Amino acid sequence: MADRIWRLGVAGLGTVGAGLLKFLSEHPDFAPAPGRVEVAGVSARSRSRPRPVDISGLRWFDDPTELAVSPDTDIFVELVGGSDGPAKAAVEAALKCGKPVVTANKALIAEHGLELARLAESKGVPLLFEAAVMGGTPAVKMLREAMVGDEVVAVAGILNGTCNYILTEMEASGRSFADVLAEAQRLGYAEADPTMDIGGFDAAHKITLLAALAFGRAPNFPAAEIEGLEGVELLDIRMARDLGYRIKLVAAAVREEGGVSVRVYPALAPLNHPLSLTGGALNALFIEGRRIGRIFIQGAGAGAGPTAAAVAADIADVLTGARRPVFQRPAAELEPFARIDPSRHVSRAYVRILVRDQAGVIAAVSETIAEAGVSIDSFLQKPVEDAGGVPIVLTTHEAPESVLRQAVERIAGLDAVVAPPLMLRIAPI
Amino acid sequence: MADRIWRLGVAGLGTVGAGLLKFLSEHPDFAPAPGRVEVAGVSARSRSRPRPVDISGLRWFDDPTELAVSPDTDIFVELVGGSDGPAKAAVEAALKCGKPVVTANKALIAEHGLELARLAESKGVPLLFEAAVMGGTPAVKMLREAMVGDEVVAVAGILNGTCNYILTEMEASGRSFADVLAEAQRLGYAEADPTMDIGGFDAAHKITLLAALAFGRAPNFPAAEIEGLEGVELLDIRMARDLGYRIKLVAAAVREEGGVSVRVYPALAPLNHPLSLTGGALNALFIEGRRIGRIFIQGAGAGAGPTAAAVAADIADVLTGARRPVFQRPAAELEPFARIDPSRHVSRAYVRILVRDQAGVIAAVSETIAEAGVSIDSFLQKPVEDAGGVPIVLTTHEAPESVLRQAVERIAGLDAVVAPPLMLRIAPI
Repeated sequence: MADRIWRLGVAGLGTVGAGLLKFLSEHPDFAPAPGRVEVAGVSARSRSRPRPVDISGLRWFDDPTELAVSPDTDIFVELVGGSDGPAKAAVEAALKCGKPVVTANKALIAEHGLELARLAESKGVPLLFEAAVMGGTPAVKMLREAMVGDEVVAVAGILNGTCNYILTEMEASGRSFADVLAEAQRLGYAEADPTMDIGGFDAAHKITLLAALAFGRAPNFPAAEIEGLEGVELLDIRMARDLGYRIKLVAAAVREEGGVSVRVYPALAPLNHPLSLTGGALNALFIEGRRIGRIFIQGAGAGAGPTAAAVAADIADVLTGARRPVFQRPAAELEPFARIDPSRHVSRAYVRILVRDQAGVIAAVSETIAEAGVSIDSFLQKPVEDAGGVPIVLTTHEAPESVLRQAVERIAGLDAVVAPPLMLRIAPI
Repeated sequence: MADRIWRLGVAGLGTVGAGLLKFLSEHPDFAPAPGRVEVAGVSARSRSRPRPVDISGLRWFDDPTELAVSPDTDIFVELVGGSDGPAKAAVEAALKCGKPVVTANKALIAEHGLELARLAESKGVPLLFEAAVMGGTPAVKMLREAMVGDEVVAVAGILNGTCNYILTEMEASGRSFADVLAEAQRLGYAEADPTMDIGGFDAAHKITLLAALAFGRAPNFPAAEIEGLEGVELLDIRMARDLGYRIKLVAAAVREEGGVSVRVYPALAPLNHPLSLTGGALNALFIEGRRIGRIFIQGAGAGAGPTAAAVAADIADVLTGARRPVFQRPAAELEPFARIDPSRHVSRAYVRILVRDQAGVIAAVSETIAEAGVSIDSFLQKPVEDAGGVPIVLTTHEAPESVLRQAVERIAGLDAVVAPPLMLRIAPI
């Protein structure tokens, strides 16, 4: 095995795929395990698109599945993306042929991870996806390999760089959500259709994977409770800051008695909290284990360089011949994903209300909250230009989220309230 | 291989060893890879010492080497400690028999890592030491496995929990170094002979290992430049804080053109810096890669629970059958450790001087610094009770460390100076 050459089939030649080819051509001996890697074939949507690497010497496949099953492909690298369609077909085909698969595709693994894990394990080949979460920061390896001597009870953090970039820029520049999003799209930090990022779906794919690794549960994307950034305005970022908080899109998976919860939501973190201090396109994650305690990791969440480095590390892992299950334990032994009843969630909350400037409004709001059985922690009213009303912001003590929502609905019905209130959680992490 | 039973020989039954036995007895199926683990034999200094686990059913060995070579030992777990003596003899004996070794022994691997790696690789067996650095926080795995698709240029952080605990407690309680150290010894956080911790040697062992993993160089403990906490007083912690800094014992390994430097020294970090925010017995580490950028990890650095969890994770790794070199690349290919000439170090500095309260002192100090060619960044004189003189503290702009030291020597020679000045670096991280 010392001199074995592993021929890669690389499907998908966007920035990550091209970055990987460039890295492999410059560092053919990067893998420390015995053996060498070379690229045998490639596949992408366009053969002629300008790329930073020359692919003319590589065998071209129009169909990624043909590349996956080609006798010249020893390891199939899937960088096509998408939960279904060509990516899924090609990964399945490679695994069915007994070929190791390395992918950066969080949607594919979050939505079809269990069946793909079964397939990979039945063939005794690895299915690795480090690059799917936190780019080059090895969150997957940490949970899959370093935490097996512990019981993880929670993982939570910032997993979507686009949202974090937008929130950071809004605060720094005082520009609106729409403005900063448009800029991020121009710079290539955000997709033309930003729904996956802004709507929280990308972060939900990632935390679904981390939950499966952390808790030994089958990944179950439909069970994720997802709230995106849509309601968050510059006003909220400013008011939260006045109260000593920063708004972040938080992804959290928690194991409690009776099940697990996997959630994505915008939340307030204290200004000196490590998540608050995670700015720009950075990602960050807490891992909480019974024995190890709390581990915090932070690093670049995306980008061609970090993501290609993570793919390369997975390829090197294949060469070691390590035999381990795809998730925390063999697919056949993964516990079913028992979702905690969402009505059991409790939280502290931030509530922002826009009211007409008239007498008795504060009294009406605070009475309504009190009648709902929610206790107020802090209260801030501050004139803000162009807010479309006078903003009132309050934070609450901990209460069942259903009770908090009822209180907000009652407030929405008050005469003086001119727009639907916004409720955000205050991060318990 | 599916049902293979791996029999462990565990040498050393202190808190970590006993914690490991307890974990293994409660979680016999913890390893996700095929196969099962059971403890076949143990060895320790005292057979009868009270322990939280019952060892009466386990085969006892007076000599760890006998346990290592016993035909009933499939994996040898070395938790004896010490760079030489019984630990080294037993690890060598196990490797010579072709048995995988898992150890928490930083001194052994830092001082004899190259020869042990050669031995392990010649026999084709793993030699794993995750628990040697940062307890349950997988710094070793990250550098050994996740960074192979990158080139690491620096690793730096806080690697000694005892020193960090003492510094944190001094600041929080306003007590002296000696007071807090004595308390830490009573509580079992510090050894009776604290030299390894306080003198910086423990952190130097750890950063030596991380440098070998990060840079593909043979570990070379004698090349480490080590300064301990000895000169740091409560006065410095307070003065640094007034200037916006916190003092930490920093371990840093840097790759530059022409070689690497591996250093341990007390340094000032800005108050909002992640290292400043790493309090108590926590450890933290920055990993800086060309592609991945900067990764930050923080977690418990020691303790029976986290360390035993790291040992268990390494045992699980053995079961996967992964073949990879002990350090970043095979021992035969590790580059020699070319140390950067220490005279090339540049730094910003904090200088604390105790003077008699007399006219012209500030002028004399600042003139002396200027004559040495060092530029002052900030200057603070503040009366402090019981300091044994009037403290003057200044910070400098960047200068060669040799020039800084000459400046401090000249200051030490001034008439008004009543005690040897203290110079600390300001962390460049």
